[in-house]
Amino acid sequence: MPVYQAPLRDQQFVIHELLDACAQLAALPPYAEVDAGTIDQVLEESGKFCAEVLFPLNASGDVEGCRYDAQARSVTTPQGFKQAWQQFRDAGWGGVAGDPEFGGQGLPALIHTAIGEMQCSANQAWAMYPGLTLGAYECLHAHGTPEQKALYLPKLLSGEWAGTMCLTEPQCGTDLGLIKTRAVPTGDGAYKITGSKIFISAGEHDLTENIVHLVLAKLPDAPEGSRGISLFIVPKFLPTAEGGVGERNGIFCAGIEHKMGIHGNSTCQMVMENATGWLVSEPHQGLAAMFVMMNGARLGVGMQGLGLNEVAYQNAVAYARERLQSRALKGAAAPDKPADPIIVHPDVRRMLLTARAYAEGGRALGYWAGLQIDIAHAHPDAAVREEAGQMLALITPIVKAFLTDNGLSSAIEAQQVFGGHGYIRDNGAEQYVRDARITTIYEGTNTIQALDLLGRKVLRDNGAALRRFGAKVQAFVQEHGTREDMNEFITPLADLGDKFTKLTMEVGMKAMADPTEVGAAATDYLRVAGHLVFAYFWAQMARVALDRQGSGDPFYAAKLATARFYFARLLPEAGARMRALRAGKQSLMAMDADWF
Amino acid sequence: MPVYQAPLRDQQFVIHELLDACAQLAALPPYAEVDAGTIDQVLEESGKFCAEVLFPLNASGDVEGCRYDAQARSVTTPQGFKQAWQQFRDAGWGGVAGDPEFGGQGLPALIHTAIGEMQCSANQAWAMYPGLTLGAYECLHAHGTPEQKALYLPKLLSGEWAGTMCLTEPQCGTDLGLIKTRAVPTGDGAYKITGSKIFISAGEHDLTENIVHLVLAKLPDAPEGSRGISLFIVPKFLPTAEGGVGERNGIFCAGIEHKMGIHGNSTCQMVMENATGWLVSEPHQGLAAMFVMMNGARLGVGMQGLGLNEVAYQNAVAYARERLQSRALKGAAAPDKPADPIIVHPDVRRMLLTARAYAEGGRALGYWAGLQIDIAHAHPDAAVREEAGQMLALITPIVKAFLTDNGLSSAIEAQQVFGGHGYIRDNGAEQYVRDARITTIYEGTNTIQALDLLGRKVLRDNGAALRRFGAKVQAFVQEHGTREDMNEFITPLADLGDKFTKLTMEVGMKAMADPTEVGAAATDYLRVAGHLVFAYFWAQMARVALDRQGSGDPFYAAKLATARFYFARLLPEAGARMRALRAGKQSLMAMDADWF
Repeated sequence: MPVYQAPLRDQQFVIHELLDACAQLAALPPYAEVDAGTIDQVLEESGKFCAEVLFPLNASGDVEGCRYDAQARSVTTPQGFKQAWQQFRDAGWGGVAGDPEFGGQGLPALIHTAIGEMQCSANQAWAMYPGLTLGAYECLHAHGTPEQKALYLPKLLSGEWAGTMCLTEPQCGTDLGLIKTRAVPTGDGAYKITGSKIFISAGEHDLTENIVHLVLAKLPDAPEGSRGISLFIVPKFLPTAEGGVGERNGIFCAGIEHKMGIHGNSTCQMVMENATGWLVSEPHQGLAAMFVMMNGARLGVGMQGLGLNEVAYQNAVAYARERLQSRALKGAAAPDKPADPIIVHPDVRRMLLTARAYAEGGRALGYWAGLQIDIAHAHPDAAVREEAGQMLALITPIVKAFLTDNGLSSAIEAQQVFGGHGYIRDNGAEQYVRDARITTIYEGTNTIQALDLLGRKVLRDNGAALRRFGAKVQAFVQEHGTREDMNEFITPLADLGDKFTKLTMEVGMKAMADPTEVGAAATDYLRVAGHLVFAYFWAQMARVALDRQGSGDPFYAAKLATARFYFARLLPEAGARMRALRAGKQSLMAMDADWF
Repeated sequence: MPVYQAPLRDQQFVIHELLDACAQLAALPPYAEVDAGTIDQVLEESGKFCAEVLFPLNASGDVEGCRYDAQARSVTTPQGFKQAWQQFRDAGWGGVAGDPEFGGQGLPALIHTAIGEMQCSANQAWAMYPGLTLGAYECLHAHGTPEQKALYLPKLLSGEWAGTMCLTEPQCGTDLGLIKTRAVPTGDGAYKITGSKIFISAGEHDLTENIVHLVLAKLPDAPEGSRGISLFIVPKFLPTAEGGVGERNGIFCAGIEHKMGIHGNSTCQMVMENATGWLVSEPHQGLAAMFVMMNGARLGVGMQGLGLNEVAYQNAVAYARERLQSRALKGAAAPDKPADPIIVHPDVRRMLLTARAYAEGGRALGYWAGLQIDIAHAHPDAAVREEAGQMLALITPIVKAFLTDNGLSSAIEAQQVFGGHGYIRDNGAEQYVRDARITTIYEGTNTIQALDLLGRKVLRDNGAALRRFGAKVQAFVQEHGTREDMNEFITPLADLGDKFTKLTMEVGMKAMADPTEVGAAATDYLRVAGHLVFAYFWAQMARVALDRQGSGDPFYAAKLATARFYFARLLPEAGARMRALRAGKQSLMAMDADWF
């Protein structure tokens, strides 16, 4: 039987001991009252909800999947999903980080980030429904008119209505400039929208009375390409003046996909036939408006990677403790049993520690990013807000791509611990791999994240954002560089920092001469950047653990052992990636397209 | 729609141009008549059979899966599987590499290896049925009595009967010493066998009139552990004196597993209730006898990894050519189209070339191993036979683990090329990942392969086998070291060879002091060894391509470009692995088991 418990102790470590979040939040007026007790209580309650309500539906939801009724053009979610949504709604989980003006609880994004991790550990397919709803909320909160906000935001925060983002079409995924969906003004402020969308997560379901689709489409006078895309609200049911549910709108689900995983989430083909929609933001500015939703969604997908990483790890540990097979190489560890638990075997530990180090590093990075959202949003000093926003923009593609790559490889390592028992359905390990597999693909493939990091976030401002982040690393190195017990962490961190600076300059020079070099370097560059960031956070975590190990709490000894494992066994990937990257475009472009 | 064509040109390159197989086979009396024309014709025919008969059943077999009837305790394979088996049987594919004394065609194992690759590309789930049948044939051919051979071998080669290997039980997979199945002599030369087996591939099905199970069990007087295991033939139906099908034996399928992939192959729980069996080989010598089957199976699983790697690659290339999305970074490559085919993008090429370089390197290594089987079996000089056998033993865990690790990661890269279209069922890409996932697990997990390589094949003979392989590498380096155009391949090969020798000595020293160090090093050590072997074969392939590129055949230009990609982009992993490995056991064992 699969197991899951919220990793509360490590979450608290990251929030309180690593980030000292309450002190940072105290400087932000809307969150000044948020104390440690509140945070811990919310996390504990969320952990209970995830473990007790969502997790028991994870395996059954995978087996059952969503069902499409072609007659009614409706989708039925797996058994229990609707009741869980009801409980979620009744407990107010949909509004945790929402604006109090629209019925939200106004808690920091940091807390929401931690809740997101737990929901994805417990049931990623289910968690996508509220995840997309929150994305729609954020987009409309940022770009909606006062009337649109008043009408939609309370419904989205309360969980009465759900949301989606409708971008992809059969002929365009990454390249949204190719969108064919058309919007024609009706003259009364509304638009008639016609077109087809695919891969619309949560596009149709039975959880809510209404679904608010945010749809990218082109106006009749739209410029070519991605500069001609506009954003529209297209609700499943047209709202009445009183905010109720009115007439059925011309947006329908035409079918759902058979997928490798996340079976409990409906992936819909959506067809619009003169559907009524309303413009969000300005004409042709849809992509910029949608990016609010997409940036949030990218951090959210990073948390999916972390969540699956964590639950896969927990299950592999449980199995490795109970499965008896062979003896430890240096002699029996449990001579009273027919064989030793496989956790004695070094290579089983290598697999477990890989998943553990990636989960704990990802948590530190992901929650730090969550805190930057709060600072960027609410710090009274504009310069501080600006810096937090810049750091967030820089780190978003790393959170998305590095945490999902790591999540997938950790889920695979965790499955491997089970041997043949990990390949069959019963133990849950194979579902984590199938579910994790989508996270490196959607919300911009990890290639797109890598291009975003190197091309837009690093090179476009000539490395300014990166230097700012580097200054933080540098300050940490200088502050702790003289501590002998920190030497094993500081030395490789400083070394990688220097190499990364040099690497960035090299790539920048090559990119100026030939933009193809950016594409040839991007994926390896992102992996190196991810390791630099992880080394920075792991060194910080080691510092806290060293200072507190005298307490006798084995948590700190485990944290130090995991930090040492990370530096010894995982960080070396950065060196190989730097070497591969330096081969440049020639190693990729020399092959004629016809020769493949 | 998924695509597959046998990679005949590259197969011929490896067999004729790289290995010069006909010259080598000419020295082996049973194969002296096998000429290039025969080899090419068999490969071409097999390629047709795989592409036209097996491949069209791959996706449908995955969707339909096997069905278990609890009443009849029977298994129905997916639609078309039985007809395909009939065609396979009629064409004599089951006996290609079989002993002519028992109705086989007596062709070299080399050819069978290439056929195995193609079958696994086309339909891994289906290919496992004949794969296990051949394994049972090989085991009985090596260890059966003359009567057992006369009775069973012709039936297995003709495809009238199928075979299985029954090892695993609920409480034991890796650790076969824990087997509980019991065999009691009946006094008339037979045994009554009682026990339960799990994860028995092809344990029950509707393809053949009989199934020959090879079952590990313990005799009443068996010593403890793995030295007390015996091997038995337990046929589904007892053979009549005339070799027909007689009474139903007490071995039944009690259920089949729901698995991540290979749905078309039945994975059975088998129950024996006083089933009649006959001893193979000596009492308590079952594991040694079974290892004949397991070594063949391990090479076979390596070919599964290669086969899935190849077909995943072919499909990703086809998609990358036709999918139009975004423009090349340096400007439009297909200005007449709405966007460029994604094969113009450097990172798409990185993914494609990764899968390609792993497939072509794996083919060279795998076919070379196939040729060693023939030399070990049939060379007139005992010393040559001995050396080939030693090389084969050394290389088997590398073929199994390195090719399956690479196959899985290549299938994942290939799926990534499809973006969201790779996550849905229609394009086939996700099936290759699910099917490939088992290959790193079964027939001894890749951890077991790594322990076998480092502990048994390298350290046990103090590196003698490894030095012999190293001498081949050294000879190649010396022969071509002065060629300027080979410098880019020879230098890194020689460098890695030197480092690997030093690494092996280091690990050997540490292992003498503490056997746990073997377990802590094994997986990284195998990856480094795999890269050394690949670098050796890629350098040889580059040498052939350099010599022939003047022919104007773009095949050689593509081979060189892929070789350069391998050295530039994939080989650097070896450096990272060596660094990780040197961290030793401390990085894994410092963590208390309770702290996980």
